[in-house]
Amino acid sequence: MRALRVSGGRAAVQDVAPPVADGDALVRVTISGICNTDLELMRGYAGFEGTIGHEFVGVVEDPGGGAVPRGARVVGEINAGCGTCARCASGDSRHCPARTVLGIVGRDGAHAELLRLPARNLLRVPDAVPDHRAVFAEPLAAACSVLECLPPVAGVRVAIVGDGKLGVLVSQVLAVAGARVVLFGKHAEKMRIAGARGIETVAVADVKAHARTFPITVEASGAEAGFAAALELLEPQGTLVLKSTFHGAASIDTARIVVDEIRITGSRCGRLAPALELLAKNAVDVEGLISETLPLARGEEALALAARPGVLKVLLTPS
Amino acid sequence: MRALRVSGGRAAVQDVAPPVADGDALVRVTISGICNTDLELMRGYAGFEGTIGHEFVGVVEDPGGGAVPRGARVVGEINAGCGTCARCASGDSRHCPARTVLGIVGRDGAHAELLRLPARNLLRVPDAVPDHRAVFAEPLAAACSVLECLPPVAGVRVAIVGDGKLGVLVSQVLAVAGARVVLFGKHAEKMRIAGARGIETVAVADVKAHARTFPITVEASGAEAGFAAALELLEPQGTLVLKSTFHGAASIDTARIVVDEIRITGSRCGRLAPALELLAKNAVDVEGLISETLPLARGEEALALAARPGVLKVLLTPS
Repeated sequence: MRALRVSGGRAAVQDVAPPVADGDALVRVTISGICNTDLELMRGYAGFEGTIGHEFVGVVEDPGGGAVPRGARVVGEINAGCGTCARCASGDSRHCPARTVLGIVGRDGAHAELLRLPARNLLRVPDAVPDHRAVFAEPLAAACSVLECLPPVAGVRVAIVGDGKLGVLVSQVLAVAGARVVLFGKHAEKMRIAGARGIETVAVADVKAHARTFPITVEASGAEAGFAAALELLEPQGTLVLKSTFHGAASIDTARIVVDEIRITGSRCGRLAPALELLAKNAVDVEGLISETLPLARGEEALALAARPGVLKVLLTPS
Repeated sequence: MRALRVSGGRAAVQDVAPPVADGDALVRVTISGICNTDLELMRGYAGFEGTIGHEFVGVVEDPGGGAVPRGARVVGEINAGCGTCARCASGDSRHCPARTVLGIVGRDGAHAELLRLPARNLLRVPDAVPDHRAVFAEPLAAACSVLECLPPVAGVRVAIVGDGKLGVLVSQVLAVAGARVVLFGKHAEKMRIAGARGIETVAVADVKAHARTFPITVEASGAEAGFAAALELLEPQGTLVLKSTFHGAASIDTARIVVDEIRITGSRCGRLAPALELLAKNAVDVEGLISETLPLARGEEALALAARPGVLKVLLTPS
């Protein structure tokens, strides 16, 4: 089968043997989405070599002994825990020390015709959610996970720094949760997507005028400058949610963190169920984030396109 | 009167006009303590110019209209708020945006014969607490404030990185609160003080052997390497309390923070009342931290001594 694989700092579409279920479920991928993490993995992040891709919607090919039958439309939790450690026993394999992660850690990913995941990781997609929306379940879940690390945000002013896919999704999720969201970004056309959902948008160049006025900020730009902006916007004793990683280490003004007793909290993967609910209710605009859909055979071109400034989500259709 | 003042990167004992109460209270300083922040202020931190010193015990000279009478032994909260903003109205002037801070921001400090503070900042020292212990109220309060930013720590494993004055005080405070404390340090003689209070001590060189095993860590070394160690010791979803500032910015591995969903929380000043209580109960060893007591006239020598590796608290007696 075809798969988009990375190795030694390069990505290439290759013909590989299809995965064998071997106790897991098999899913035939209908659409997969390119995430910035895919681009980082290509550059060597986390030392991963193999098939990338962790955003997908597909159809069950082999239920792997699970409850979701062959033919069902599914999305999947990307963390596959050992199933026996304390973390897994508590129902959350996202921090299982022995976990594999679809297309990121020790497990081939979704930019392929078929993928393999534990049956318990699969969730049926509601009929009301078409494939091109369902493929956003994973990134939307990552956006929803910001809510997991904050007290209730209803009525609270929250600044989001970064108007990429992640920033626009986080802005919408927080707005739906009742926060008074201000999105700081650079790209008029991206800010318009958030603006159309009633979210206030401000040019990131104007951060100084809003310094120290937000009790909560979210860094979603993936850039060191974005972290500095998110810190600058924060009130004393405020909380900065660090939602995206940087290339390498960031230089941080620790005196500001101590003197103003600031809280920084890292946030990674979310749970897919709340994301599917938002998609089913049509509460979040994801269509507006689709820049392009390409066949998997043109995977390398798709990665290059996704890396271009101004481009939002690039989708791949493997079959 | 004599005062130890900093200006242009240098410190000097000078003869200055004594402060005028002008609505505040006046305190005749009995003993003041040199803090690492004094050394940083001397090097230009926060741009402060004037009399340094924010740890003191003294005797009320002019009550300034307050309830604590002339002649009473006192310590003092170092943050002097505007008294009218929302932060001050809530009873906590530590984050008043217009605050002055004794010997740190816009207000002459305690390494002097007399100091001036709002009367409401003064707390009487219990008879059971002699001066040489009472002078530790402020740094001990800073140690106690770690408890303010954590859930209850009873029974919880906590790693403290840094065996300086701050690290040894934080270790003791957390141990008294019931935490299972491990102090990571470099100096056998400092670790012995904590060890004598039943605290486990480990050489900081052995951090790797304890990597990812603590749900809570406290960085109290004031060094970038200490921050890295505190991060390394932390379990996924753990909390790192940043208790001390560095010289300049620190380079931080943000990917670790995001992937392991780590929480970092800055912690600065504490409230003096809980610290006085610990001192009155003799629950914390502070005498062991005293390296030297010098007269204020030898203030410059005292600063040089306090800056020397291995030296703990240096006290000054102004009168």
